[in-house]
Amino acid sequence: MDWEREARAGVAEAVLCAGKSDAQIERIVTLAEAMGHRLLLTRLEPARWEGLDAALRDRFDYDAMSRTAVLGGLRPQVKSAVGILAAGTSDMPVALEAQRTLAFHGHNATVIADVGVAGLWRLVERREELAGFRVVIAVAGMEGALFSVVAGLVSAPVIAVPTSAAGYGVAEGGVAALNAALASCAPGVVVVNIDNGYGAAAAALKMIQPAR
Amino acid sequence: MDWEREARAGVAEAVLCAGKSDAQIERIVTLAEAMGHRLLLTRLEPARWEGLDAALRDRFDYDAMSRTAVLGGLRPQVKSAVGILAAGTSDMPVALEAQRTLAFHGHNATVIADVGVAGLWRLVERREELAGFRVVIAVAGMEGALFSVVAGLVSAPVIAVPTSAAGYGVAEGGVAALNAALASCAPGVVVVNIDNGYGAAAAALKMIQPAR
Amino acid sequence: MDWEREARAGVAEAVLCAGKSDAQIERIVTLAEAMGHRLLLTRLEPARWEGLDAALRDRFDYDAMSRTAVLGGLRPQVKSAVGILAAGTSDMPVALEAQRTLAFHGHNATVIADVGVAGLWRLVERREELAGFRVVIAVAGMEGALFSVVAGLVSAPVIAVPTSAAGYGVAEGGVAALNAALASCAPGVVVVNIDNGYGAAAAALKMIQPAR
Amino acid sequence: MDWEREARAGVAEAVLCAGKSDAQIERIVTLAEAMGHRLLLTRLEPARWEGLDAALRDRFDYDAMSRTAVLGGLRPQVKSAVGILAAGTSDMPVALEAQRTLAFHGHNATVIADVGVAGLWRLVERREELAGFRVVIAVAGMEGALFSVVAGLVSAPVIAVPTSAAGYGVAEGGVAALNAALASCAPGVVVVNIDNGYGAAAAALKMIQPAR
Amino acid sequence: MDWEREARAGVAEAVLCAGKSDAQIERIVTLAEAMGHRLLLTRLEPARWEGLDAALRDRFDYDAMSRTAVLGGLRPQVKSAVGILAAGTSDMPVALEAQRTLAFHGHNATVIADVGVAGLWRLVERREELAGFRVVIAVAGMEGALFSVVAGLVSAPVIAVPTSAAGYGVAEGGVAALNAALASCAPGVVVVNIDNGYGAAAAALKMIQPAR
Amino acid sequence: MDWEREARAGVAEAVLCAGKSDAQIERIVTLAEAMGHRLLLTRLEPARWEGLDAALRDRFDYDAMSRTAVLGGLRPQVKSAVGILAAGTSDMPVALEAQRTLAFHGHNATVIADVGVAGLWRLVERREELAGFRVVIAVAGMEGALFSVVAGLVSAPVIAVPTSAAGYGVAEGGVAALNAALASCAPGVVVVNIDNGYGAAAAALKMIQPAR
Amino acid sequence: MDWEREARAGVAEAVLCAGKSDAQIERIVTLAEAMGHRLLLTRLEPARWEGLDAALRDRFDYDAMSRTAVLGGLRPQVKSAVGILAAGTSDMPVALEAQRTLAFHGHNATVIADVGVAGLWRLVERREELAGFRVVIAVAGMEGALFSVVAGLVSAPVIAVPTSAAGYGVAEGGVAALNAALASCAPGVVVVNIDNGYGAAAAALKMIQPAR
Amino acid sequence: MDWEREARAGVAEAVLCAGKSDAQIERIVTLAEAMGHRLLLTRLEPARWEGLDAALRDRFDYDAMSRTAVLGGLRPQVKSAVGILAAGTSDMPVALEAQRTLAFHGHNATVIADVGVAGLWRLVERREELAGFRVVIAVAGMEGALFSVVAGLVSAPVIAVPTSAAGYGVAEGGVAALNAALASCAPGVVVVNIDNGYGAAAAALKMIQPAR
Repeated sequence: MDWEREARAGVAEAVLCAGKSDAQIERIVTLAEAMGHRLLLTRLEPARWEGLDAALRDRFDYDAMSRTAVLGGLRPQVKSAVGILAAGTSDMPVALEAQRTLAFHGHNATVIADVGVAGLWRLVERREELAGFRVVIAVAGMEGALFSVVAGLVSAPVIAVPTSAAGYGVAEGGVAALNAALASCAPGVVVVNIDNGYGAAAAALKMIQPAR
Repeated sequence: MDWEREARAGVAEAVLCAGKSDAQIERIVTLAEAMGHRLLLTRLEPARWEGLDAALRDRFDYDAMSRTAVLGGLRPQVKSAVGILAAGTSDMPVALEAQRTLAFHGHNATVIADVGVAGLWRLVERREELAGFRVVIAVAGMEGALFSVVAGLVSAPVIAVPTSAAGYGVAEGGVAALNAALASCAPGVVVVNIDNGYGAAAAALKMIQPAR
Repeated sequence: MDWEREARAGVAEAVLCAGKSDAQIERIVTLAEAMGHRLLLTRLEPARWEGLDAALRDRFDYDAMSRTAVLGGLRPQVKSAVGILAAGTSDMPVALEAQRTLAFHGHNATVIADVGVAGLWRLVERREELAGFRVVIAVAGMEGALFSVVAGLVSAPVIAVPTSAAGYGVAEGGVAALNAALASCAPGVVVVNIDNGYGAAAAALKMIQPAR
Repeated sequence: MDWEREARAGVAEAVLCAGKSDAQIERIVTLAEAMGHRLLLTRLEPARWEGLDAALRDRFDYDAMSRTAVLGGLRPQVKSAVGILAAGTSDMPVALEAQRTLAFHGHNATVIADVGVAGLWRLVERREELAGFRVVIAVAGMEGALFSVVAGLVSAPVIAVPTSAAGYGVAEGGVAALNAALASCAPGVVVVNIDNGYGAAAAALKMIQPAR
Repeated sequence: MDWEREARAGVAEAVLCAGKSDAQIERIVTLAEAMGHRLLLTRLEPARWEGLDAALRDRFDYDAMSRTAVLGGLRPQVKSAVGILAAGTSDMPVALEAQRTLAFHGHNATVIADVGVAGLWRLVERREELAGFRVVIAVAGMEGALFSVVAGLVSAPVIAVPTSAAGYGVAEGGVAALNAALASCAPGVVVVNIDNGYGAAAAALKMIQPAR
Repeated sequence: MDWEREARAGVAEAVLCAGKSDAQIERIVTLAEAMGHRLLLTRLEPARWEGLDAALRDRFDYDAMSRTAVLGGLRPQVKSAVGILAAGTSDMPVALEAQRTLAFHGHNATVIADVGVAGLWRLVERREELAGFRVVIAVAGMEGALFSVVAGLVSAPVIAVPTSAAGYGVAEGGVAALNAALASCAPGVVVVNIDNGYGAAAAALKMIQPAR
Repeated sequence: MDWEREARAGVAEAVLCAGKSDAQIERIVTLAEAMGHRLLLTRLEPARWEGLDAALRDRFDYDAMSRTAVLGGLRPQVKSAVGILAAGTSDMPVALEAQRTLAFHGHNATVIADVGVAGLWRLVERREELAGFRVVIAVAGMEGALFSVVAGLVSAPVIAVPTSAAGYGVAEGGVAALNAALASCAPGVVVVNIDNGYGAAAAALKMIQPAR
Repeated sequence: MDWEREARAGVAEAVLCAGKSDAQIERIVTLAEAMGHRLLLTRLEPARWEGLDAALRDRFDYDAMSRTAVLGGLRPQVKSAVGILAAGTSDMPVALEAQRTLAFHGHNATVIADVGVAGLWRLVERREELAGFRVVIAVAGMEGALFSVVAGLVSAPVIAVPTSAAGYGVAEGGVAALNAALASCAPGVVVVNIDNGYGAAAAALKMIQPAR
């Protein structure tokens, strides 16, 4: 682990649990506690969480929907200039991963749910609230039309997070939404990998950090 | 050529010029004239049109933007219940291919241009006009967000025509727009092949034909 | 949920269960009942259905083959002008999803099964029956030859639904059938996403709705 | 060049001109003439043919449509048990490459043109003629529905040759037709590479050769 | 089921169990028995076979390695002119599916195992035996080099069957082997879908059937 | 054209010349001049520029390397907090498109060239200069390793722009670099479409605009 | 099994357990023991290992992390000129498969872990140690930037092994890392298939073998 | 340019002309001459070479087939331990790019042409010569079977270079050959990017350099 990254780069390294064995995760946790570091775990599926050692679990704040676990407590929260939009119910886990990552760094960000473009007025109605954000994280799967529509409504940069959960057929795996984000006709859209709520939050944190 | 298709199926067979040699095209035209048939040629690029025999060209009504040529004249035009939306300037050739195909069959369809979602209000402003169409053909490239937005605004079926002209990078060839159309979160969207303005018009004609 | 969609656009929003958690589904159902709305659930696998709360299940009409559940009862059924063709045994779940969606909206549609093109005469024999439909939904996997063959036989628009169930190798996931539908040489074929029986029915409903 | 291949394996090696320089082609021709061998050149585009040395061209029988050139004359032709079907006008160059390859080996094969499935009866009408072939080569682009339909009509093996000429959008390059051939629901379909008329003819020759 | 296919086309229709429910399979079996037909089931995984009704299983000859089940007994076996080559251990299930399909139709075909090209001499040593086949079915995964090597050694047509079992990374799913077969530099190679041992046998049967 | 976009969203709409005809471009220019608007044209290839009307060209500031043309002059330039890194010589056109877009909006941004990772020290040496940027635009093709390396060195957000110019084989079209950017192990990387220098600059402008 | 390969080619054939049945594996082991051969098994997942016959397992040295099992003991180990770098925790199984393969052949190779490019200094600090290797095996997933960075730091050839474990979204399956390796801007990088630690070790052994 | 790379890493940086403008190339050449450096240019197409300044061309040794130009003369040549195999005529340009790159560094390497696997004996006959190489570069397109066959015949490492020239259909662009190389069943095959003769030579140079 790169313990100095938060001091150096403004964002702490998270532990991506997918692709790591239980033994590897426990070793990192032990090391973090020994060194007195806080820790953010991502992609920690509920079934796997249940299988971890109970003593270890007691020391974490776990959230099943976002599949994230925090060791060492959150920081005091300040109202964040980052807004998070989620197109549909299936996009909530990724939106919450972004929200929890921001919270880990002390930012209390608003999530606005169910603003998919098939019901456009739900988004248009909240235009004033959107105007208050300095960065918008937009989370959407399927055809990803939300990214372009939001970018046409706000002057803030839009970080598009394509999702894979509700996609089937050509949308399977989130690639259709990813390509829609990259191909967006609206300037100001930047993109992170599919389902990468953590990455979107990390980039947002860097965008709103005070000049050094 | 399947000369009876229009009588049998309500839509005439068109001659797709791409993939055919000049000699093959001229043979079909000669045959059509000998048999007294009208003829619609599609995908006939201006440079190629210029290279065809002048006497042959005189007998056609050619339109460079839509790359279509009509032999034997249009039918008397009636106001069509089909509306055609084009997201951007680069989508006009495909939108006009659809319009000319409808005109060949006697339908005078309206084209509404420049209604891309980055400027959403241009579309929302014309909501009443959109409500008058029984079928909407939506033509868009890049990320194809128009398809979902339109389908959320109208009760008519939406035929999505993805386009390739303005696409580069992941949007090259129109595949990002195609997948966005297929993956649309708005029910009622059906899709034809990339740049297939003729196919969209053919399907629209079948949708609005009187019950037999 | 967009409860007003049926009134506004002629088709009710369905709940796509894939990609949603049990808790999310139950919350939507509770809300629908509280508001007195009927509800259509799709992609609800039998194993998952069995795991839902028994009291909740009692209030639904569930069909395992089509993986659909209806809350609040079907509407009175009228004979529909929509015909549904299924190429093979493996295509039946998707064909029935389309049929149940039509039934939810009050349309009693005929399903014609086992009309794959390897036995062409089975289709040709029913040509007269086919001629009576105003819209044909064709459901096929593997190489999807059915779409083009049907479109050559009828004057109605054909909504092609590619399926994934029987596909392996290059046909895995239904992409070969999808591309066959989009590339069809027969005008009048429009396409929805792989396995999207609900989407095909929604589009068909919009095509046959009376002019407003 | 593997001059002994015809004696050893029943099919002569052809010179695929695409990917070779003019100098390389001329060197092979010179060598063939010096050794007294006949030679079949494929994929020799008309523009390139025109640019070759006139003296060299005089010694060849060139056919522009099939882009093939024969050195040393054809063999005496016998009526072949191989039938070649072409779905549309754009498929003729590939069908003729197969026909010319068979002719180079002494087989006079019939080409049946314009039997695409959008006009199914054109194919069904010729069912008796089809029954006389021991091997059928089916040449089709776009969605390649012809392969499955033919295989359902004949008891002979069907060699599917997908083509690229008329394909655009998802059919570009012939991949949709290729996958349709491989995914065919009709047993007895075998497949060669896109546009590979020579390969289809080579395989057909091997299938009909007398037992050794 | 198309019960007349064997009489009409020389090859019986098989029941592809993947993609069908247990109820659907049992219905087909019942129907076959009622009508006195023999039946070949393919892609019937051992775990699924074990789960079927014991009484039903008693009436079948099941082979776990090839995942095939035969109802009604094999035909008297004659020595076949078809040879089957398998590159490695992982290719055996597909090779045996081809062998069992041939046996169902009365052909006793030889399988030559472990002749992958990394040990070329194992193949070259059996060159004389190979020369005795009128059709060769070559089964290989990974990079599929066997197809080209075999086609260079024999004058018979080679039916390439790419396999997916041993492939990982770029070879996952068998696509690398499939493309190698289609792109083969050796004329006379024809190809069927990945893992399609049944299809290869069906095509071989058509190639060796006596002229009608 | 959406003339109000700069006022509304902080970034002016540019005219993407690829995919538009000469007539369409000239119409937009005429309109802009009539309305007194400045205009930025992108993807205007030198050969095409030379073919435009000379009188029209006189009114533009054209730069061949970046393929951009500016109508109406640049704004007074202020030193920008945006830094632009280009990995190699072939990446310069895209880097300059970003620089010119920033200049159009009044930002004088530094381009640091030839800092590809094969010579890592060239980048490490300039670490202090990099630390001064509030946003870094990194432009790279081939394998796109620059994106991750830069993001590990700076605390600013990194906008990755994959390029297509030097790529061949698996890098053709820039997709390898695009995927490397999206898959980056370094948090804080956001991505725009391949070759989209304009889009990167637009996003950077939004990131550094003062809070409203 | 090709028992002579080690004598002939310097590297023993390994048994890739994925894609083989338990019965097939046990047969190979029995044969090896009967002939007195040592044996290396790869891709033998822990769950599957646990299911094998206990008596058989007793005769093996199994390592769960690398999923390898050795029959017949390792050779005496000499310090190897091959160095193995692993970018992250998830890359360790593949790095250890390479290390164990080298150990099976008598080479004791060093693994340097956690040298991903997001923390560049960890790699740069060990530059002297890197200079001592005659061949470097670099193991990395996600965006694979390590390959180019290492190749810029050492004069030895670099064998890139892309991994799939930590990849999701566009990095799923390891393809992004694979393409990054192939597209590397640093000369001297050669590549093996995704997750192919055995193949990388085999190639390294061939590179450092004494001239014959 | 990284002028120190040859001293530092044993291989000089080459100038990849594709993707660079004429002005950019001329600037690099001028700089090299001013500093007294030798220079290797690759991917310099004949038509482009003819268009360069005549005075500049006089100072180069240009080879049209390999599309390489050398400034400053070759080094004294020693017999190289590297052997280069080319499967077919179309693979020669890439094989010669590798040979010229080796010659630039003082190595006189043998090219063995026309050893494609369809004529296996041509390769087997030269087995003794092959045994003398310490590194083999194998160049092949289409299905790339040569890579596996060669690796089964020699104990040296095999650097596979897939080529794109003769490929069409599924082999277009060389991807089928690339995947065949990566998926090879023969251990000891390592791979470089499609058409990358320079990269293969660079890796070979690093493999045979004396230990430092």
